[in-house]
Amino acid sequence: MENFNFYSPTEFVFGKGRAAETGSLVKKYGGTRVLIHYGGGSAVRSGLIDTVKKSLDEAGVPHCELGGVQPNPRDTLIYKGIGLGRNENVDLILAVGGGSVIDSAKGIALGIPYNGDFWDFYSGKLPEKALPVGTVLTIAAAGSEGSGNSIVTKEDGMLKRGARNDILRPKFSIMDPALTQTLPAYQTACGATDIMAHIFERYFTNTPEVEITDRLCEAVLLTMLKETPRVLADPDNYEARANIMWAGMIAHNNICGVGRQQDWNSHNLEHELSGLYDVTHGAGLAVMMPAWMEYVYKHNVLRFCQMSTRVFGCQMNFENPEATAMEGIHRFRRFLKSIGMPINFTELGAKEEDIPVLVEKLGIGDGKRAGFMELDRNDVIEIYRIAAHASL
Amino acid sequence: MENFNFYSPTEFVFGKGRAAETGSLVKKYGGTRVLIHYGGGSAVRSGLIDTVKKSLDEAGVPHCELGGVQPNPRDTLIYKGIGLGRNENVDLILAVGGGSVIDSAKGIALGIPYNGDFWDFYSGKLPEKALPVGTVLTIAAAGSEGSGNSIVTKEDGMLKRGARNDILRPKFSIMDPALTQTLPAYQTACGATDIMAHIFERYFTNTPEVEITDRLCEAVLLTMLKETPRVLADPDNYEARANIMWAGMIAHNNICGVGRQQDWNSHNLEHELSGLYDVTHGAGLAVMMPAWMEYVYKHNVLRFCQMSTRVFGCQMNFENPEATAMEGIHRFRRFLKSIGMPINFTELGAKEEDIPVLVEKLGIGDGKRAGFMELDRNDVIEIYRIAAHASL
Repeated sequence: MENFNFYSPTEFVFGKGRAAETGSLVKKYGGTRVLIHYGGGSAVRSGLIDTVKKSLDEAGVPHCELGGVQPNPRDTLIYKGIGLGRNENVDLILAVGGGSVIDSAKGIALGIPYNGDFWDFYSGKLPEKALPVGTVLTIAAAGSEGSGNSIVTKEDGMLKRGARNDILRPKFSIMDPALTQTLPAYQTACGATDIMAHIFERYFTNTPEVEITDRLCEAVLLTMLKETPRVLADPDNYEARANIMWAGMIAHNNICGVGRQQDWNSHNLEHELSGLYDVTHGAGLAVMMPAWMEYVYKHNVLRFCQMSTRVFGCQMNFENPEATAMEGIHRFRRFLKSIGMPINFTELGAKEEDIPVLVEKLGIGDGKRAGFMELDRNDVIEIYRIAAHASL
Repeated sequence: MENFNFYSPTEFVFGKGRAAETGSLVKKYGGTRVLIHYGGGSAVRSGLIDTVKKSLDEAGVPHCELGGVQPNPRDTLIYKGIGLGRNENVDLILAVGGGSVIDSAKGIALGIPYNGDFWDFYSGKLPEKALPVGTVLTIAAAGSEGSGNSIVTKEDGMLKRGARNDILRPKFSIMDPALTQTLPAYQTACGATDIMAHIFERYFTNTPEVEITDRLCEAVLLTMLKETPRVLADPDNYEARANIMWAGMIAHNNICGVGRQQDWNSHNLEHELSGLYDVTHGAGLAVMMPAWMEYVYKHNVLRFCQMSTRVFGCQMNFENPEATAMEGIHRFRRFLKSIGMPINFTELGAKEEDIPVLVEKLGIGDGKRAGFMELDRNDVIEIYRIAAHASL
């Protein structure tokens, strides 16, 4: 196990009806003027925005608002939010929505107190200051409600880049599983895929002797395998929604990833897909993650056998460990298909002939990308090719 | 799943040599005058106290000290610490040691700003204020480095009572697994037992549909089953020590216990044992926990089967689920024996004829204790009797 720091100071307020506590939580964490940030119409139509505003009004906290966050949130709206927030003198950003809204809110929180272009922090600059962010979560997926991460897309060129720092961890996150019951099945499944991907990217490591985090990773994956089909069969299954929602936070606040080398190559390879085609991140991951696995499993066959046996319930084939490794990957892809995810470029709406563009945007050049298995330009091309043609 | 709040704002600083960062962490969390609190001679002899003092000196933070914390930490020393801390005007308590030292430090942290007897908080009064506590952990066991709990013994009558509040969560905890390498095997095993007990007390619940926390609980237990024998076979096994140390934090910061009813009866039954005989808490738990299991398993046989199959690797006996439940309990007790733990009163140094005294101190009266299975006076007597006579 490697040395690490772990700091997750977010207060999680979990359960039915908790959005009514928004006002008191904002005050608890020092908010006196709030920018409410949200996405499309669903948060408005469902009455959630009204609930939140009522709670703020009751707490005597003035607020302004900025809606319109799109999936793969854009820098353009963040600039608008920074301007609005400065004009209105807000001191807390309240994200009401999913990962895109929260990530956008984090961008605004970074930009308001900064004398410069907020994009600097998505180009490698280390942030030192950000306004506090609170969240009211409406989809289990990105884990941004508990993470110090934010992923934003530069509209000019559709460049998708991330910032990561503990100061970006929300002060509080309200997590009401009932709010996710109205999600379309496709969005629910995309979220579940994202959650599982967040685990796999921590699971495949070259760091030896990390049993506790291995087991925690497997705990989250086993939960997702059980609960995802249940919510797809019955969208109103509150209990299954609740298990997925808490699993989604645990999958990305890094409690499952400390003390070990991680591998975010498949996530980054996907970012170019959702950047170029504006597809849902989870759907892109369903295509890329098993493709990446197929390409790299030979780097450590027994680690894949561990996944296959502990997570996917395979019997270990001691005469042919590779078969066990491949069987686990196959079962993963079959699971993804069963929950309605695309498994290749065609189903996703991507094109094989765009692979050179994807590789170009990834900016790999002649270098190598570190990870579970080091990847160079040719490796990346090969993984995209596997993804293009994958089938059951 | 039940509604819950989860708030774990401690910064964990994990790995080899991290105690040298004490001074900068104290400053980061606002400490300007520190009371160093520790136990017996080992923290001094090992040079750890010197390392800590040097780090504080380098950071320009003045300090005073109070050693002598015993296992089952006493109120008498806490009163002394409160007096010393007030005289010296300290604003942060630095616990260097294990659970007893940290729990004692939390008592001092509660007492210094309080105009009254700190014992009030161990008699049900809700604390509103406490000095910040930092820790340098030397044994994986109590989980107090990440929890809002503190258990203290009133010397007059050896009454063991607890306080619990999020304000008691340490600001930072330095966790260097190498510091645990010099522990005697018996203390290591007692710590491992305590960690497993913290999980079982969350695992046995009447709350349905808590798959994610069930799986996380099982993850910690599986880790302990693997790593504990390894550190006993080779005390210098840093990697196994590291896995146990992080597991110990996770077992008690409540990430594995949110949203579910918990059952702390076996812990409380044990507290009377260690209170009366001054035995190590973990050793008492090794005797009480399987005895409690044997008495209550019929309340929900299939939940015990889940433990037996998922944690102890039993094959499910579908014709006789009770046999599977009992087999898991048997394997747990066999595991405890294998790591050198006592499994009955005689091995622990307790006496069956004291059972009435234990029950009296527990203060159960004619009432019932809530939990996985409600327990009245007769139930408690029966559990103590099973514990008295247990064998493999």
